[in-house]
Amino acid sequence: MSKHPIILTQGSFAHKDALLFPYEERGIQFGDGVYEVIRIYEGNPYLMEEHIDRLYRSLAAIRIQINLDKATLIQLLLDLIERNNMSVDGLIYLQVTRGSAVRTHTFPDDVEPNLFAYVESQPRHLDKLENGVHTITLPDERWANCYIKSLNLLPNVLAKQTAAENNCYESILHRDGTVTECGSSNIYLVKDGNIYTHPTTNHILNGCVRMATKRFADNLQIPFIEEAFSLDDINGADEIFLTSSMSEVLPVTQVDGNKVANGEPGLITRQLQEAYYQDAKIEGSKQISR
Amino acid sequence: MSKHPIILTQGSFAHKDALLFPYEERGIQFGDGVYEVIRIYEGNPYLMEEHIDRLYRSLAAIRIQINLDKATLIQLLLDLIERNNMSVDGLIYLQVTRGSAVRTHTFPDDVEPNLFAYVESQPRHLDKLENGVHTITLPDERWANCYIKSLNLLPNVLAKQTAAENNCYESILHRDGTVTECGSSNIYLVKDGNIYTHPTTNHILNGCVRMATKRFADNLQIPFIEEAFSLDDINGADEIFLTSSMSEVLPVTQVDGNKVANGEPGLITRQLQEAYYQDAKIEGSKQISR
Repeated sequence: MSKHPIILTQGSFAHKDALLFPYEERGIQFGDGVYEVIRIYEGNPYLMEEHIDRLYRSLAAIRIQINLDKATLIQLLLDLIERNNMSVDGLIYLQVTRGSAVRTHTFPDDVEPNLFAYVESQPRHLDKLENGVHTITLPDERWANCYIKSLNLLPNVLAKQTAAENNCYESILHRDGTVTECGSSNIYLVKDGNIYTHPTTNHILNGCVRMATKRFADNLQIPFIEEAFSLDDINGADEIFLTSSMSEVLPVTQVDGNKVANGEPGLITRQLQEAYYQDAKIEGSKQISR
Repeated sequence: MSKHPIILTQGSFAHKDALLFPYEERGIQFGDGVYEVIRIYEGNPYLMEEHIDRLYRSLAAIRIQINLDKATLIQLLLDLIERNNMSVDGLIYLQVTRGSAVRTHTFPDDVEPNLFAYVESQPRHLDKLENGVHTITLPDERWANCYIKSLNLLPNVLAKQTAAENNCYESILHRDGTVTECGSSNIYLVKDGNIYTHPTTNHILNGCVRMATKRFADNLQIPFIEEAFSLDDINGADEIFLTSSMSEVLPVTQVDGNKVANGEPGLITRQLQEAYYQDAKIEGSKQISR
């Protein structure tokens, strides 16, 4: 039984069991929609405006129009948290599809988009934040427009499953040797005091925590260089870390079974973690916050 | 109100309105599933075994296991047609997802896949089969594993929508100038009596009508050369045609506003259409069948 049973659907609130979709939902038959996952800390959403801005960018990219302005949607999501008495760490999942209609690839006429959102508790990965995670490299098999946060997630599902089966937390994806991002996170390499990460082309999602990380790096006067690095560069990396709304700023200590540098989370990663905790107004992992 | 309201769900039959999915269906949140569209002529499915074989190949590729063997599934689909008294031209839509579970990218444990199928009437495109269709070329923005008939169809949706907005029936997709396939069909170029089409790599779906077309070409002793052609080759083409379960063998008479050869359906296309009609035991379009 869910502790947070109230969901948002089309601007109204309902019990989760009341939200059911016919098989002709375009989310089901085409993945014809976009989504966001927003971090909640003790009931407070983090980077909400960045997420909502991105949702509207994704919607515009696939030409779905909703009858809700950003401010109204944000207020509805805040109400959703409140109606669920959500005071722990968790997330908001928010999705919009083109709607339900008789199956045909082209956009259906006069169909209302389906919007829904729910909240869920989800503890932070304190142990991983402290000790770092292992990763595996895999070819990036996704489509050409990964800047859109779409529901077409099968390649991500398969990459993350392969990672898990190799006792890894994430997959580092590359296109012909050029590292793009991870299965569900952005990825960064630190070398000689500089942070390198793939530029925000069509090949990666501009993560909300990526945007925040850039801001933290600027404040800390650490060069944030938006140039892709290659698989070969990983061998000589001083640090590697990844970011996402659920993973925060997470040290990567192994890639394909090889230690990153000495196999310990690096100093710049630690500085960015601290900046994240301050920005999100949360405690760090136990040793960081000591 | 549907004329064919009985659907197949998990090996049983039900009224379509009874089949509803929670938002945690992995089809909805990840497009984590595969599908088939099978042509029906006057109540008889065409190329059923080829479709079911391919469904199982797609399922294996994304590692979904269902508790139905092929023969049982085929019998259930035949029963579905009968229970709907389906005697007209139409289609079977058949989909399998990994199931419904709390959202996480990796495969959920102990979840039963969701299988459903329905039938729908759908007349043949007699006018298009007779006169041919117009097409537009677009970059192929799909993922690397198009040989899997997955539910991740957003790039196809967008390509077919762009085609429609340009008064075209289909989009011809290319990767850096190499023609792969269309938004929802395979594509072929005829030059000097040879048929050229992209080989069945990971970049295209091995269409059931493509398999049949290869068989027809072999029987007619027309060379069927599985070599990709380029956008540049289109200018010098003698004929272009496309195939799919819903489009059959369809002449392409214009590409990007330019006529293909003299702008009329070509002779080899006509021969393959005739072979299709014989194989499917159907009438041709009016002038073909005169």
